[in-house]
Amino acid sequence: MQPVRGQVAALLPKNLDMAERKRMNTATCPVARALDLVGDRWSLLIVRDAFDGVSRFSDFQASLGAARNILASRLKALVQEGILESQPAADGSAYQQYVLTPRGQALFPVIVGLRQWGEGQLFARGERRSRLVDRESGQPVARLGVESADGRPLQFDEVQVVGK
Amino acid sequence: MQPVRGQVAALLPKNLDMAERKRMNTATCPVARALDLVGDRWSLLIVRDAFDGVSRFSDFQASLGAARNILASRLKALVQEGILESQPAADGSAYQQYVLTPRGQALFPVIVGLRQWGEGQLFARGERRSRLVDRESGQPVARLGVESADGRPLQFDEVQVVGK
Repeated sequence: MQPVRGQVAALLPKNLDMAERKRMNTATCPVARALDLVGDRWSLLIVRDAFDGVSRFSDFQASLGAARNILASRLKALVQEGILESQPAADGSAYQQYVLTPRGQALFPVIVGLRQWGEGQLFARGERRSRLVDRESGQPVARLGVESADGRPLQFDEVQVVGK
Repeated sequence: MQPVRGQVAALLPKNLDMAERKRMNTATCPVARALDLVGDRWSLLIVRDAFDGVSRFSDFQASLGAARNILASRLKALVQEGILESQPAADGSAYQQYVLTPRGQALFPVIVGLRQWGEGQLFARGERRSRLVDRESGQPVARLGVESADGRPLQFDEVQVVGK
């Protein structure tokens, strides 16, 4: 799944101008490169829906309430970036379906992190919200935590970025 | 840190129209509420920089290369949403500084998740990139993983969203 040198440019969103594409292509910060592909609300909501099993254009549209042209451009970009794959519908109908590639599936902890941040920060106590549960036990998943290589919990002030 | 019912609207970005604000205010999906606040590239890059210790307008601008008006509007929104706090500079100068609130600090796993996805998916083997390390050991942090309440690793197809 890793691009070889020179192919990274092909993964960048098409709506960036040349200077911005060049800058991002050469960004040494993985957060910046990640956000160039998924740093907008629609793209991450589409990925969220894909994790929930949504696969057809009309079902994404019903779920997201996005305008057709916006949804179409975001789906196209996600396919170009290798996050979604477009394929004939599993039921043999004329529809296309969009499914997560391994690169898209690797966004699972990001979506769960956003969910847990929302749960903890943006809902009143007792306010109705959806929950992410382990299918087997029906229990909520554990809170994501950053840990050291040997398993100690790490706070944000216990880490640093090197090699910028 | 949790808003009480009725205060959630005050946390929403100011650039949404009334219908959109109403929809998001009542969204039961924590991912959607989260992305309404941080679902754009600039906001999450600002939060990334704040984790790295950037605090002044001019330093954010130098790091991000964002236009002044875009940076100013994003910083203002992040303060309004309770993610950053604006305060007099620690050195007693006339400058303001922007620091993460506890709500902003709680985005740590999200930023680490984006970083690790970028590292794993968007860099060629051996390509130069920054690294996030444990200050104490100098070792890279562990990969984030979603787990069950009792500590079993969970893949995306082993969970489900309930109560939508």
